[in-house]
Amino acid sequence: MATYVLIHGAWHDGDLLGPVADHIRAGGHEVHTPTLAGNGPKDDKSTGLEEAIASVTGYLEAHDLRDIVLAGHSYGGMVITGVADRMTDRITRLVYWNAFVPNSGDSLLDLVPPHFAAMFRDLAEASGDNSLTLPYPVWRDGFFNDGDGDAAQAAYDKLNPQPFATFTDQIALTTDPAAMQLGKSYINGLHDAALPHSHGWHPRLSERLGLFRLVQMMGGHESCLIDPGATADALIVAGRK
Amino acid sequence: MATYVLIHGAWHDGDLLGPVADHIRAGGHEVHTPTLAGNGPKDDKSTGLEEAIASVTGYLEAHDLRDIVLAGHSYGGMVITGVADRMTDRITRLVYWNAFVPNSGDSLLDLVPPHFAAMFRDLAEASGDNSLTLPYPVWRDGFFNDGDGDAAQAAYDKLNPQPFATFTDQIALTTDPAAMQLGKSYINGLHDAALPHSHGWHPRLSERLGLFRLVQMMGGHESCLIDPGATADALIVAGRK
Amino acid sequence: MATYVLIHGAWHDGDLLGPVADHIRAGGHEVHTPTLAGNGPKDDKSTGLEEAIASVTGYLEAHDLRDIVLAGHSYGGMVITGVADRMTDRITRLVYWNAFVPNSGDSLLDLVPPHFAAMFRDLAEASGDNSLTLPYPVWRDGFFNDGDGDAAQAAYDKLNPQPFATFTDQIALTTDPAAMQLGKSYINGLHDAALPHSHGWHPRLSERLGLFRLVQMMGGHESCLIDPGATADALIVAGRK
Repeated sequence: MATYVLIHGAWHDGDLLGPVADHIRAGGHEVHTPTLAGNGPKDDKSTGLEEAIASVTGYLEAHDLRDIVLAGHSYGGMVITGVADRMTDRITRLVYWNAFVPNSGDSLLDLVPPHFAAMFRDLAEASGDNSLTLPYPVWRDGFFNDGDGDAAQAAYDKLNPQPFATFTDQIALTTDPAAMQLGKSYINGLHDAALPHSHGWHPRLSERLGLFRLVQMMGGHESCLIDPGATADALIVAGRK
Repeated sequence: MATYVLIHGAWHDGDLLGPVADHIRAGGHEVHTPTLAGNGPKDDKSTGLEEAIASVTGYLEAHDLRDIVLAGHSYGGMVITGVADRMTDRITRLVYWNAFVPNSGDSLLDLVPPHFAAMFRDLAEASGDNSLTLPYPVWRDGFFNDGDGDAAQAAYDKLNPQPFATFTDQIALTTDPAAMQLGKSYINGLHDAALPHSHGWHPRLSERLGLFRLVQMMGGHESCLIDPGATADALIVAGRK
Repeated sequence: MATYVLIHGAWHDGDLLGPVADHIRAGGHEVHTPTLAGNGPKDDKSTGLEEAIASVTGYLEAHDLRDIVLAGHSYGGMVITGVADRMTDRITRLVYWNAFVPNSGDSLLDLVPPHFAAMFRDLAEASGDNSLTLPYPVWRDGFFNDGDGDAAQAAYDKLNPQPFATFTDQIALTTDPAAMQLGKSYINGLHDAALPHSHGWHPRLSERLGLFRLVQMMGGHESCLIDPGATADALIVAGRK
């Protein structure tokens, strides 16, 4: 049995991964879903990427976790890349799950289409505290496309504002992902349109991993909420030996 | 419950969408499947694109339909774009279903690969009445790839010659689709090879919509005939609030 | 009922296609799974592509097979293209199944990404007999990505070294595949990552066939071992009239 640590995406928190974690636990695995610094209910919205990474390395140390399958969803890909660079020997396999794969020096904003970066900047500037929340129509049709409208609204009401610095901070790595001596997997939801497919997750970002295990699933960007069982299955296929 | 108006593709007519409509009605919705001008049994094969569009706007007025989910299949995408431009306030959401997405000035022929355009021109010239019918091998392997041979032949026998002017007429729009203030969805069948995937439906044409809801399904271009239940499910996911 | 001849890929042999063949036979069809020259237990590892092709044409003659659906998996696409060029009149339809589609003058190495070609060359040089075996990590994550680890290891233990000349020999054809007057199908597994998707099987290689029937399936490169039933279903859809 494996030890899974699941790192949520932007605007989410660890609790939203609870249903996925329960499905993985039903397979006999240990699962952790920490909330990143910056996404907790009382967190300062000036939190940056390095603090988010440090909140995971601190969690792994505090719980003395080893032989980990470390999975990151979306923005969580930035974070797990940093964690893997700092704590390579605790990790068996990295799982990117429609997630960003940065090389050293990249910020998340460098990896999205220019019109997304501009929208994010405008939202952060208008926020008053340099955070941003997705406009509902973008969430509904771009992120929650395969779910129903009531569920989309209910999920939207649980999101928290994302500290914009986590999107603009450039990651510093000693080793880029392709050169990391770890197992690597990429889960790609065939319905995932959170990034436009002309500038998408896979293969554009996945192939930055070098040799990796591809897991395609029928699901969109919020499959953790819409179909947690299928998401758990994909994470198990991605994470097994 | 919603009001669906389904606009068929080239060579088809509204009756061929009957099984899909029945499945959607079983979900409690109202469904209309008008036959476009040019595709009726007695229609003049000199019909052009503007007449096809007008046959739908006339239908919507005659039945006083409002709050419509207007879905267009294949060539039907040309038509619903024109209808939406002329009757925006009657429409809640446009659903393009492996369909063409024109900007103002585009003809259907501008949106297909050059070797398709050449084949269509040759067929129209040879027809005697400026119409065209797909050669059976193209229908069988390119359009009906996921169906069986007897069903492919039976469906082929129900097709009607397409007025070529509907493919060559340039559409005139006051607003291109990306700027239309309407909900928009794009259904993409993963088996759909009616356009070659190097010059395909999605994301090449879908991303002309600006923000849209992507619905991917396991089905080919003629899923309306091969798997009407799955097609209806996709239309419901595409059309719901 | 049809006569299927299934041609295995590199490192495989005909016996490994036994479970797929049994599923197809259950549909009432006749199925042959010859082992290519170069992949038999006592075969010389200096075998070249022309000998592999000749081993199939010899098999078809010896069994006097006609009206064949000739399917090739992966490297088997090189072989069936050569067979079709030499024995067109015995073949009803070619089925490429995540397979290479060469034009005259191409070697397999010309059709893979440069870093694969370099890896294959290095492995062959190090082998002592100009053959090559995939490193296990490449097999596990690149080829067997959708299977489990024990099954991956068990299958790996059944593979045989591939004569490198079958990858470097240029095929000589009188007719390139697009111009062959035969039915053609391409089966593409959506999980197949044996080639990177930025330089993949479909549509890059499939569209060399001209008009062809696309069959997409949920499966990876080794679906013959991981899900022989779904593979057989795809071969039947690809091969039917």
